[in-house]
Amino acid sequence: MTLIVAKFGGTSVASPERIKNVAKRLARMKENGDKVVAVVSAMGKTTDELMGLANAVNTNPPARELDRLLSTGEQVSMTLLALSLESMGLRAMSFTGRQAGIETNGTHNKARIVKVHNERILNALEADIIPVVAGFQGIDANGDITTLGRGGSDTTAVAVAWGIGADVCEIYSDVDGVYTTDPRIAPRARKLNEISYDDMLELSSAGSGVLQSRAVEFAKKWGVVIHSRSAFSDAPGTYIKEDPKMEEAVITGIAHDTSEIKVTIRHVPDAVGVAAKVFSALAANMVNMDMIIQNTSRDGATDISFTCPASDLARARETLDVIIPEIGADSVDVEEDIAKISLVGTGMKSSPGVSALAFRTLGENNINIMAISTSPIRLSMVIDSAETQRAVQLLHTAFDLDSDSIFEETQLSAEEIAAKMAKGR
Amino acid sequence: MTLIVAKFGGTSVASPERIKNVAKRLARMKENGDKVVAVVSAMGKTTDELMGLANAVNTNPPARELDRLLSTGEQVSMTLLALSLESMGLRAMSFTGRQAGIETNGTHNKARIVKVHNERILNALEADIIPVVAGFQGIDANGDITTLGRGGSDTTAVAVAWGIGADVCEIYSDVDGVYTTDPRIAPRARKLNEISYDDMLELSSAGSGVLQSRAVEFAKKWGVVIHSRSAFSDAPGTYIKEDPKMEEAVITGIAHDTSEIKVTIRHVPDAVGVAAKVFSALAANMVNMDMIIQNTSRDGATDISFTCPASDLARARETLDVIIPEIGADSVDVEEDIAKISLVGTGMKSSPGVSALAFRTLGENNINIMAISTSPIRLSMVIDSAETQRAVQLLHTAFDLDSDSIFEETQLSAEEIAAKMAKGR
Repeated sequence: MTLIVAKFGGTSVASPERIKNVAKRLARMKENGDKVVAVVSAMGKTTDELMGLANAVNTNPPARELDRLLSTGEQVSMTLLALSLESMGLRAMSFTGRQAGIETNGTHNKARIVKVHNERILNALEADIIPVVAGFQGIDANGDITTLGRGGSDTTAVAVAWGIGADVCEIYSDVDGVYTTDPRIAPRARKLNEISYDDMLELSSAGSGVLQSRAVEFAKKWGVVIHSRSAFSDAPGTYIKEDPKMEEAVITGIAHDTSEIKVTIRHVPDAVGVAAKVFSALAANMVNMDMIIQNTSRDGATDISFTCPASDLARARETLDVIIPEIGADSVDVEEDIAKISLVGTGMKSSPGVSALAFRTLGENNINIMAISTSPIRLSMVIDSAETQRAVQLLHTAFDLDSDSIFEETQLSAEEIAAKMAKGR
Repeated sequence: MTLIVAKFGGTSVASPERIKNVAKRLARMKENGDKVVAVVSAMGKTTDELMGLANAVNTNPPARELDRLLSTGEQVSMTLLALSLESMGLRAMSFTGRQAGIETNGTHNKARIVKVHNERILNALEADIIPVVAGFQGIDANGDITTLGRGGSDTTAVAVAWGIGADVCEIYSDVDGVYTTDPRIAPRARKLNEISYDDMLELSSAGSGVLQSRAVEFAKKWGVVIHSRSAFSDAPGTYIKEDPKMEEAVITGIAHDTSEIKVTIRHVPDAVGVAAKVFSALAANMVNMDMIIQNTSRDGATDISFTCPASDLARARETLDVIIPEIGADSVDVEEDIAKISLVGTGMKSSPGVSALAFRTLGENNINIMAISTSPIRLSMVIDSAETQRAVQLLHTAFDLDSDSIFEETQLSAEEIAAKMAKGR
């Protein structure tokens, strides 16, 4: 017997038909003799629709009331899944975040789980009932409903898995696992059987959208094994765990991210505290800087560049319009058509040649690298976004990540691959 | 200062625009120096849609889970109204049935309120906050969510009004009050300024759909004054209260109902206990008989007729197919095209001539009366449904109910009247 937490995203419960399919899958687990707890997101685009209604009546909705509103989405999907299980002759019971004992801090809209009281879920399992838990929500110490932010249902699933000591936390989605890179742009991408928490975290934060970073962090901290797999097939997906018995590859995967822009401040005086002043002003105005590049000084001045999400541009300009005259810099350039390509792999720690091979591969193919940043297990390079696909394919081949079954893989049409996968969004 | 409970139905909160209008109305009450508690139904057809989803995954959904699902509808509308009030600079707080202290019995889907614990609402009012309460829902002694059945939000509003000792319970809808009869079929119908609880109850149960009977019963029992008025205008509507200072009319209003059918069992042996056997079998099979007519006996047998909702016909036939051979009756006739016309008025008690005038009015105009039933304050007559409009107009005139301002009223086109009113649905 395996104790499983199975989480189903919005796409998997978007219609009564799909909810019935989820119920059938849970029924098969029960038939196999496993015990299972389901965690569900809201149906399809429900959360966006509720947010749209809130914004229509209040352009700046107070967080506490907003959380009460948003939490209804999962209350609908959890009840429908419980009803569907009951109609198949199984015993099921739905649990709101409060009833499932998900206690969070009081940071509405992006609360963090601080405690999990899973007695009621364990009691239900003991009584051979399938608990169906609302993802994305909890309660704070005041008893107010909180929500965990975008993708919070993954975090709920990992928290419940930890709370009840589940053997595995299965995350079902429209993606069938973690790939070495986005198969939509590199048909030779390979599905990984296993990946370490650290590599998964770097891939997620570098733009691979398979799993919520916070859920992976939580899983790493508490040692919960995640199995990322497809809601539409029975094929195994990718296990995310502490010590995967991996092929000893230097690089685990390549992520790309075209959602950032590059801002360059020209001719910044090279004096103590100037850069700090710029960056603290940007941070204070909620500009999330990712990579920062300070060029070598010339004539007592330098150019400073940083990348940030395109959505932060207005706030960045607002801040720089004030700061630039203050510090005596010249002007601001913005490049919007950039892409960040990231090589990720725990194996990089013991392999010094990674940067050299990456730079040579792109250089020989006339792809200019505008900026570089590294961590012990990641190398990120900013390039022209028009070169994204070519750069990913070249690096994928250079680092020996290409699928062995080239023939088979290349038989797939672009549509088939896109349908099979929706990674990296 | 007046303490007001203001209830808004699904049509009044069907869109963000309409919710904003409700918020504006509440703001005006505050400006007038009144204190107000809002009670809301789910937006538009939400409850029907949720019921549809439930039926799509489970053709016989368990009542407990169904109530959890349905209760989310009011949780959405209450939050949106609170958000809208906040955006206007007012302080508001939403309350689920549980938080508003609406305690019910455990009869899921049509629970009855047993207690009201309104401390939290009173505390909010004390702090100058507008409480927004979810209608239609409560919790039972086990802490499970219950719902009050169709139109239950009216009952919530009356219960809250009683619980906090409100001066008036205003029920806003797309109808601007209680009329002497349905203005869509009788343009000379007059809006009543006041009506007694008893007359309102008889009108409601005789087919006038303005207010939920249960809410009026509750209001009568606890002495809550109801003001039924339009959500789309500021004109006063109709007060429902114990001792209205009414014009001393014999008849308060005329209701009609075309949703029933008439079933006649031919040649029933005239023996002791036979009729009882028929009616108890029908009742046991959930056939809601309304009027029962037993004709005088001839040759030791008689015809027995009863009226019941058309939706009960299948169950009635099922029962009679078994009973008729048992009791030795002949056959069953069903008439579907019938209408029940009801004259209602507390004044009837002291005016013996009502039946005579009603029968003569219809008789002189060749409208045949198929069945009659009475209560101390109601006279109901079953006629051919094709004659509904003519019968209502004739009786309305005969009992001096016609509007004085005939000229003004008849200036309204059928469309204008239909738009202005939507009574009797």
